[in-house]
Amino acid sequence: MRSPGIGPVTYRQLMARFGSAGAALQAVPDLARRGGGSAPKLFTRDQAEREIDAVEKLGARYLVLGQGLYPRLLAEQEDAPPLLMVKGDLGLLERQAVAIVGARNASAAACRFARGLAHDLGGEGLVVVSGLARGIDSAAHDGALETGTIAVIAGGIDIFYPPENEQRQRAIGERGLVLAEMPPGIEPRARHFPYRNRIIAGISVGTVVVEAAPRSGSLITARLAAEAGREVMAVPGSPLDPRAQGCNQLIRDGATLVQTAADVAEAIRLPTSSVRSAPIDYEPASEMNGDDALGVVEELLGPSPVPVDEIIRLSGAPSGAVQMALLELDLAGRLDRHAGGKVSLRPA
Amino acid sequence: MRSPGIGPVTYRQLMARFGSAGAALQAVPDLARRGGGSAPKLFTRDQAEREIDAVEKLGARYLVLGQGLYPRLLAEQEDAPPLLMVKGDLGLLERQAVAIVGARNASAAACRFARGLAHDLGGEGLVVVSGLARGIDSAAHDGALETGTIAVIAGGIDIFYPPENEQRQRAIGERGLVLAEMPPGIEPRARHFPYRNRIIAGISVGTVVVEAAPRSGSLITARLAAEAGREVMAVPGSPLDPRAQGCNQLIRDGATLVQTAADVAEAIRLPTSSVRSAPIDYEPASEMNGDDALGVVEELLGPSPVPVDEIIRLSGAPSGAVQMALLELDLAGRLDRHAGGKVSLRPA
Repeated sequence: MRSPGIGPVTYRQLMARFGSAGAALQAVPDLARRGGGSAPKLFTRDQAEREIDAVEKLGARYLVLGQGLYPRLLAEQEDAPPLLMVKGDLGLLERQAVAIVGARNASAAACRFARGLAHDLGGEGLVVVSGLARGIDSAAHDGALETGTIAVIAGGIDIFYPPENEQRQRAIGERGLVLAEMPPGIEPRARHFPYRNRIIAGISVGTVVVEAAPRSGSLITARLAAEAGREVMAVPGSPLDPRAQGCNQLIRDGATLVQTAADVAEAIRLPTSSVRSAPIDYEPASEMNGDDALGVVEELLGPSPVPVDEIIRLSGAPSGAVQMALLELDLAGRLDRHAGGKVSLRPA
Repeated sequence: MRSPGIGPVTYRQLMARFGSAGAALQAVPDLARRGGGSAPKLFTRDQAEREIDAVEKLGARYLVLGQGLYPRLLAEQEDAPPLLMVKGDLGLLERQAVAIVGARNASAAACRFARGLAHDLGGEGLVVVSGLARGIDSAAHDGALETGTIAVIAGGIDIFYPPENEQRQRAIGERGLVLAEMPPGIEPRARHFPYRNRIIAGISVGTVVVEAAPRSGSLITARLAAEAGREVMAVPGSPLDPRAQGCNQLIRDGATLVQTAADVAEAIRLPTSSVRSAPIDYEPASEMNGDDALGVVEELLGPSPVPVDEIIRLSGAPSGAVQMALLELDLAGRLDRHAGGKVSLRPA
């Protein structure tokens, strides 16, 4: 995961093919060459050990996709982060969680509402997830600090952002749970926030949006939740209030209007089953027919994204062989992966 | 319609059976006797002529179900009033109409919003219908006075209610249209308002609710609109605002969230066809088998409401014969008609 050119999807495919990180790392240079590229520069054992030391010293620990406490709902996502760092009460990972997100510049009334909603959701036995931003996020964490809250942050687990939330982040790191995808020392940048948002949506059975402007990050989280098949909920407001526009539009687009924790609980219809992480089956594929498939797949691909399923169908090759060919092209830096399981050949 | 015991449904069935009011009036005493009751006391020709004179003197005129300008959408309703009185711009009856209803004690902001929405709906070419109550209703009429508004009132066309709306009602009677079901001189009573509401919902392609308390008259109008298969729309508000509860609940129950006239226009998907009244076919039924059917139907009926369709099915008699038997029982004061086309025998 720390090697350039290997994203969550490629990681997952490599693990599925080779069964272990060791076997995958050994295979990568060859695969890349077969795909027509040069071998990627792999993260070294030394670098890895240094990072692991740093995480330990911070009092944090790793969650590994497909193992132990890694959140089951997040693992269902195709682009689930292979590695997470967490600090705090790990027991929260075993409980059902609902996200509350919203505007950083929310009204005082909306922040008070978010805090009360988070408190009441705690009373319903739900963990409250948010992004530790100013405004609604902070209010949601505060309301659920006693009952259980998870703060998903965009930077490393040791970075306090925004700075005025340092005390809040420390408190959540002790009594709640702080969760980061980026390695320690990484300052959050604009491009990290959508990744953070997909984790918020991914670990939650549903996402509640409180006061969000049109085209805001909160609406992105709502969209990601919808794409993940999770419940999208929004708190309405007056048409005369510009800050209610995003939520009202979400409701027009099909989100469930919620006004109380009871509404949220009803919308997500609390199942009684455990949400404990289930191990992912990383069995290596038994048969490969890579030599033939690579040529066929390369021929079928072009600059326009096409669904992998279609490539499999058109190639006539076994699904495993096509996936392997795509993996090779990917590692060779010749494949682009798109939303909805589509792929295209990267223009030279 | 002015004779006791003859409601809109009975009226409609009599007209369908006998083809004209004259033939129906002649038949009623016999029908009532056959149903096992005494002949109802019919409204006299003299009484009718006096009422017609009064309506004319008021500058108003009648609309008759199934004729001329009688609103087509209202005529679709099983319990459409056979007779309406109108005063003002009859041309408004030929245009598509949307109802705006809401709380009498609405906030100033909501009244301003309703006025603006009505104004903008006028800009979309829509006539705005409301009930001339205080609050939202009055604001809606005011916003659409220039472009076209219909005030449906609960009392007679000559009664000003609430008193402070006299000027508004006079203005609408000149530049808009005032519509009443009750004959002149009738003061509105509590029981008249649901009848008024069914007309508001019935002549409109959709109903917009602005600020309504739970269990308020506005929600009854919304329910009537839904039952008539019309679009139900509601303007959302903050969960912190108690006056938004009714609308938010409507949206949770499936009403379309609207914030602008464009939202309303989209929801009702403005058809281009004329809404001119279409004549109802009052052909007399050709065959009757009343003697046999009456006994069978009477036997099938009890104090619990049952669907007329079921009576027809169980009786094995032709539908027309069953309807006639029901009509006879009705005129004899022995039948109760219920919502959803159900009937029961009135307890002796």
